[in-house]
Order: sequence, then C-alpha cells, then structure tokens
Amino acid sequence: MLECIEQKKTKKTEVQGEIDSLRKELSSLANVVKSKKLPVIITFDGWSAAGKGSQISKLIKNLDPRFYKVVSIRTPDEKEKRKPWLHRYWEVLPKKGEFLILDRSWYRDTVNAYMFGEISKSEYKRRLEDINILERQLSDDGYLIIKFFLHITKKEQRERIEKLASSDITDWRVDRHDIINMESYEKFMRLYDKMIVSTNTKSAVWHIVPANDKVTAEFSELVTVTNSIKGAVAAEESKTQFSEKPELPLAEIKPCIFKTADQPKLADIDMNRSITDEEYEKKLKKYQDKLFKLQNLCYQKRIPVIIAYEGWDAGGKGGNIKRVAAALDPRGYEVKPIAAPEPSELARHYLWRFWTRLENDGHFTIFDRTWYGRVMVEPIEKITPTERAEMAYREINEFEKQLTDWGAVVIKFWINISKDEQYRRFKERENTPEKRWKITDEDWRNREKWDEYETAVNKMIKRTSTDFAPWTVIEGNDKKYARIKALKIICRRLEERLEKD
Amino acid sequence: MLECIEQKKTKKTEVQGEIDSLRKELSSLANVVKSKKLPVIITFDGWSAAGKGSQISKLIKNLDPRFYKVVSIRTPDEKEKRKPWLHRYWEVLPKKGEFLILDRSWYRDTVNAYMFGEISKSEYKRRLEDINILERQLSDDGYLIIKFFLHITKKEQRERIEKLASSDITDWRVDRHDIINMESYEKFMRLYDKMIVSTNTKSAVWHIVPANDKVTAEFSELVTVTNSIKGAVAAEESKTQFSEKPELPLAEIKPCIFKTADQPKLADIDMNRSITDEEYEKKLKKYQDKLFKLQNLCYQKRIPVIIAYEGWDAGGKGGNIKRVAAALDPRGYEVKPIAAPEPSELARHYLWRFWTRLENDGHFTIFDRTWYGRVMVEPIEKITPTERAEMAYREINEFEKQLTDWGAVVIKFWINISKDEQYRRFKERENTPEKRWKITDEDWRNREKWDEYETAVNKMIKRTSTDFAPWTVIEGNDKKYARIKALKIICRRLEERLEKD
Repeated sequence: MLECIEQKKTKKTEVQGEIDSLRKELSSLANVVKSKKLPVIITFDGWSAAGKGSQISKLIKNLDPRFYKVVSIRTPDEKEKRKPWLHRYWEVLPKKGEFLILDRSWYRDTVNAYMFGEISKSEYKRRLEDINILERQLSDDGYLIIKFFLHITKKEQRERIEKLASSDITDWRVDRHDIINMESYEKFMRLYDKMIVSTNTKSAVWHIVPANDKVTAEFSELVTVTNSIKGAVAAEESKTQFSEKPELPLAEIKPCIFKTADQPKLADIDMNRSITDEEYEKKLKKYQDKLFKLQNLCYQKRIPVIIAYEGWDAGGKGGNIKRVAAALDPRGYEVKPIAAPEPSELARHYLWRFWTRLENDGHFTIFDRTWYGRVMVEPIEKITPTERAEMAYREINEFEKQLTDWGAVVIKFWINISKDEQYRRFKERENTPEKRWKITDEDWRNREKWDEYETAVNKMIKRTSTDFAPWTVIEGNDKKYARIKALKIICRRLEERLEKD
Repeated sequence: MLECIEQKKTKKTEVQGEIDSLRKELSSLANVVKSKKLPVIITFDGWSAAGKGSQISKLIKNLDPRFYKVVSIRTPDEKEKRKPWLHRYWEVLPKKGEFLILDRSWYRDTVNAYMFGEISKSEYKRRLEDINILERQLSDDGYLIIKFFLHITKKEQRERIEKLASSDITDWRVDRHDIINMESYEKFMRLYDKMIVSTNTKSAVWHIVPANDKVTAEFSELVTVTNSIKGAVAAEESKTQFSEKPELPLAEIKPCIFKTADQPKLADIDMNRSITDEEYEKKLKKYQDKLFKLQNLCYQKRIPVIIAYEGWDAGGKGGNIKRVAAALDPRGYEVKPIAAPEPSELARHYLWRFWTRLENDGHFTIFDRTWYGRVMVEPIEKITPTERAEMAYREINEFEKQLTDWGAVVIKFWINISKDEQYRRFKERENTPEKRWKITDEDWRNREKWDEYETAVNKMIKRTSTDFAPWTVIEGNDKKYARIKALKIICRRLEERLEKD
C-alpha cells in the first residue's frame, strides 16, 4: 500500500498563497477549538528521517502555545516501564479545548518495539487492539484524533540519513534505530502497511502524507487538520458523532465480548454473617501476616495490585481499608480516596483520573470509591447522561482488562449493608462529635434513592464481573466479618496470581 | 549535645497501658485533624539503623490510610536532580487535613549529601537556610511540622548493623551509606549537633528521641505527636499561631533582606513607544533566531529558564508568549496558563501549584499569570486576607531566590497598557465572534478596580524587583513593540547568564 503512494513535488511559490491562508485559518480555528472545548490529538508517525520534527514545528507556529503541548515519545525509560504501556499517553491527555501533538505515538511503541525485539508477537497484536480501544474510547468522549503517517521512499530516506550522518553537527541525530529502519526498509514497510490497515477505524482514520517533499507534506497536513477541525465542530453543533471520510477502507473490528460470571443479587445476600471477637482477633492476625508476606512476593515479582472498594455510604470501607493497609509495608501501597472530580478532571476523559493514579508495578493501589461512579452516582444524579453511562460498562471492562494485561491483580469489593444498618450508623455518626464530619446532608439524600442505587449496583455487578476482574460482595453488617472476608479474598487472589507466575 | 541524651529503657509491660491509650487518642485526633483541616508533616531522621522504618509502621497503624502518605527519601535519582532540590518535598505536600510522613527528610538531603560529597560546604549551608525558609513558609500557612531525630549510641548502632549484615535475609538492608555513618560516628555526631542547633526554630522544633530502646521511642513519639496536634488545634481555635515549647534553645535566624532595585511607577511609563511593521518583521526574525540558538546553549548547559508574564487584561500576553514560543524547540518548553486554583490546589500552600509546574533544567517554563496573583487579585478580590498577602512578598522573593540558586534565569514581565487601550481591545473582542470567548464579565469588573490594581502593581514591582529576579515593565500599547522588547530582554538575560557559566 505505502509503495503505491505517489510522491508529488510542489514548488513553494505555487502553493505559498494557499499555505498562508490555511495557516491563518488554522490560527482562527484554534480559537474555535478553545471556545467549543474540543480536545484535539494530532499524532505524527512514519519513517525515520521523514521530517516529523520539522513538520510539527511548522504546524504549531499557528497555535496558541498556552493551549498545546508537544510530547516526544522515545523508548520508555525504567520508570515508564513500571506502568501499563498506555499510561504515558493517558498522562498527557489534553484538556477539552487543547491540543496534544505527539512526535511519534502509541504506534511507535508498537511497531518499533516489536521490530526492535522489545515485545513479543502476541504482545504486538494485543497492543494494536489496545490502540483501537484507546482511540475509540477517546473519540466516543469527543476527542478529535488526527493521525499522520509521514511516508518517504527508500531512496529519499537513505539520502537524508546519509546526509545527517556525514556532518559532525547532525550525526548525533542518527541512532541505531534509524539505521535499522533504513536497512530493513521492506520489512518495515510490510509491517507499517498491516498496522495502518488494522487501525484505520472510524474513530481515527489514517492520513498518509507523502513527505519526500516538505512543502507538499505541510500543505497536505494543513488541509487535513483544518478540515478535521471544521468537521468535528460541525458534528458537535448538529449533535452527531464526527466521522471523517476515510482515505483507506476501514478496518473490521470484532468487538471484544467480555464473559461475565453470575453473581447473586444484593437482595439475595445473607446479611446475618458475623464473627466473634475472639475469632476476629485470631484471623485478623493470621491474614494480615499472610498478606504482608504476599506483598513482599508481589513486590519482588513486580506484580501490581489494584484493590477497588465500593459500597453503601457508612458501609465501613474506611475501616476495612485500614485493616488491609495495616498489614502492608507503608512504602509499598497508596490509598486513593476518590471524591467528586475537580475541574481539571472534568475537562478530560473520565478514566483519566484513574489512569494517572496508578502506582508502579510491585505496589498496591487501593481505591476508596472508583471508576464505577460512572455507572452509579453519575447517571443517578444526572451528572452524566444515561446513554454515556451505558457505554462505560464496556470501557470499564476494557480498562480492567488492560490492567490485567499489565500483570495486575484486580480485586473489587462491594461492601453491602442493610438499609436499617445504614440508618443506625448514620445516627451514630451524628451523635458522635468526632465522627460528625463523616456524615453530610448528601448522605441522607443518597439514602432516599436506595432502590435506584440497588438496581444500578446489581446491573454493575452483573455486567462487570469478568473472569479477570470479578466482584466480591462482602456482607458488611458485621464490620469485623467484612474485614476478615476482604483480607481472605485478597490473600487468595494474590496466591492464585503468584502460582501462575 | 546528642552525646548527653540519656538512653532510658522502658519495660513494655510498664507502659503498655499508656501506649494503648495514646494510640487510641491519636486515632481520634486524626479525625480532628481531618475535620479541622490541619495539614501535618512528620519527619523521621536520625542514625542509620535507628529504627525509623519500624517506628513509622507503628505510628501509622493509628491513622486512617486514606489520609496519610508515607514517602521514603533516598539519594535523588537522575530525574529528581533536574529540579530544584526542594522540589520533591513540595511535590508530596499533604492537603489540609492529611498527614505526610517522611522516612528521612530534607535533613537527609543536606547532612548526608554533604558527608557523602554530593554537595559542597557552601551548598550545605545554603540548604540549611532553605530548610528554615521552607519550614517557616509551611508553618505560616498552618502546617504542623513534627521533626523527630532518632538517636542511638555508637555501641547500639554497631550491634544493630552487624546483626543485620550477618544474616542472609537482612544483609541487603545495610548499604555503603550505613557503613560510613557507623564508621564516622563522631564526625556525623558533630554535624548532626550543629544541624539540629541551627534548625531548631519556632516554626518547627526538634524532638530528639532516644531510640536505643524501641518501646521508649514509640512512647515518646506518641506523646509528642498527640501533644503537638492538640496544641495546633487549640491554637487554631484561639486564632493564634501554634508554637511548641522547644526542648532546645531556638536558633537565631537573621531574616534574609532582599535588595530591590528602583523601578518607575506605571504612571511614569511612556506609553507611546511603537515600531514600524517593517522594523518589526526584521527584528522579530533577528531575535527569534538568536533565542533559538540561546535555547540550545541553555539546554546543553542544563540551565532552567523561568519566564513569568503578568499584565493588564487584554494586555497582549498571549500574543507575546506566542512569539517567544515560536522561536523555541517545542520539546524544550512548556507554557503554563494559570487560572483560579482548583480545590486540590486551594487545599495546599499557595506556592505548591507553581513548584509542581516547574519543568526540568535545560527547559523553559513560561507562566501566563503567576504566583503574583497572591499580592494582586487575591487581596483585591478578598480571596486572601491582606495580612496573609503581605507575607507573600518575602515568600515570593525566597521562592525566586531558590529558583536562581537552582541555576535558573528568572525573567518577569509586566505588560502595561493604558486604560483607554484596554477599553478599545475589550470592545474589539466583543465585536469579533472568534475572540468573544476571551472576554468575560469578570474582565469588565476587574477594569472597574483599575486604580486599586495599579497601586498593587506598583507595590509589587517595588518590593520584588530583586537583583536576581528583576521586573521589566513592557510598554504594550503597540503589541509589536512589546513583543520585540520581550524577546530582546529574554535574549539579554540568557546571554548574561551564559557568560557567567
């Protein structure tokens, strides 16, 4: 496919007028992007020495530097390798109304990583799927993704690299990767072809830019960027989703179907489970000691552990988490309390604040409330429209699958208490001076919607109890029973994971 | 001094009851900390093998893990070395109502760094001053700082280290630094003594914990932490500043006096400066080319560049920044637009959001609005009481001095326009559809307070035009003139800095 791309040559004088007016148009479209709060991601991939850097420099001259960020992607460093591979992209996700320009993108992390032996073939395939998921998730959230592949011919590439390498001033710009890219041109071409074909989706179509000639390249990029922005703005105004007319046939993507296990409904849970104080003390010590040892093993094997706590208000999440944390080496975990999102969080994809809170591998990340707010409090409180919230089940399953692929053990608890027990605890909080800060009017208001929440929880458990990230409903009327059960489950899941390693 | 510390031995059975009740008290005080929004920093320093880790583990068992963070400080890694040395502490600053527990602190970074030859003697002294400044700034902002020095005798240390080193399971815990700490015990003692004496301030007094005996140590820490929290809460309630009764005489600290240069008042600025279009194009190219080259040199020499833009609304900051950014390699700078603080920012010291936005050395950080909001918009809009804002002049001078000590060039612009010119531009924005998002009711409201702002700006320029971070007022009625002037000043300041290198 790439082989058939025609490399036009444009004299600068011929198109200078058009380029100038496109630049001006882009400049004023950037204002529209800002006022319409459209988030834009522009990726530049392509051959070594294809001119990505200089094309980016030209493009950004038309943008307001307060509202864009250029990020250069290189081989991940040691710190980046301790997070899921997509983490470094989530981390730099632009706000609504801002631009992110990637000098090489997740495509570099896939094709080059595979070609340079950093990842296996199956990992390579999985990454391509991850890319389709990422681009779809972002696009569904209103992100405009413009993907450029800068294509140069074999001859042109060789000339450029040799020229760079022959000068003392520029030879540092040619590295081992460039040489391999040049010497295995045909092999790369086949891989690029396949990659482009399998990731040309309606969420993010590919734009192949013939880049032997720099003027032609700039011209074609300006046309694409301005058209895409205009299209996205028009789509936004007519409340439809933006789809570009693809230059290449769209890839057929089989949606990933997540198998979910049956779970009892909340109403069917036996809420009378309890434990004696004596048994509690004994088992608490037993499982905390066990967990401490398991944490050490996970640390050594660099296994990430994600524990997600959800449950009714006053369900006892805090005390439960405290008993888990008490077992752990304090340098190896962090508890992340999740409150209502801040403005900078609302200005991005809702998964952003969870992606960016992940600790390194080998560490525990304990979430006190989680991404499940998206399918519970958000639609119930009308913060998110129902149809957007509906999409989240799949997105959440995908997110948790990606965490699992990273190597993580994902453990999810719903701490369940009866409505009467909640009333008792609310009253107790109100009557205990140092606990009063824990109870707010909002808690009482939420309580009035108990049935609505119960329906949402049942649905959530049903649709997101995957085999890799199953839910455990914990009978929480007896706090001590609940703590032991949580500790037990965590230990069991870690043991299962360690056995596989 | 340390030599004279008595090492008591306490039988666990004797104090078990007291320890238990202190633990309970701390647990409930943690709720008070949360509800009173008191931020608490507890630092553990001391001899190698003094038991810092195990003391911390015991302490946190009494705290809610959602509201504390334990951070272990080691020799800074390559990434950390590219920021000011205090950056990594600012980065983990707790929110109001939360605890930060430091396993070794800024004291490790000072004494050990000096003893292990990482920093010079003068750098060592400057760091002790930086520490006094940091602790005072935090304390002034309501932070409670509790500093422990865990002291063990030479004999005890030797026994512990030898025991650790002799077992296969624990020998990894003994490193080169521990051996040196043991072998140069007397030398370290002298240095610790001096360090403690010179940093025992009313903002943060030292607590020396005799730690030969672990039970005694825990007991004494629990007493200190509970008393300090109670004291801080009581001080908060009576609206006074919390000062602990020091165990040691307080250090005498000479406040740093910042010399400031005379600057003209805004009213005396000649606002008729302008430039022809032709001259503009010529000079723009000239200074942008120059700046590009200077950026390269700064990058090679790892010089950080901080450019702070302030100015009247519609003064032309955006366009000015754009011309500066256009000259730069996009991988080497970031523009940070500063809006109203978010909840997570309001919950911390106001300088936190600037500290955490600093780019690596060798890079440009361009602030569009800055920390000077503290002495302009905040007191004028009654967001910050005048007496708190008053304190900011010194804090800001200290902050900029610390940036300069890091090696940074700090450049500050006030873009000045006349009141008539502002009116013209506001109207123009209102009448241009794609610029309309730039103008809000707030802009008009601010305009009504022009005189109040002018007084504040004059005062700010007068009090913070230090020799290391002077202000430049830029005549901005002619935008093009302003852009060239900014570029010129930046180039000059960089050249001066490079000459010194």
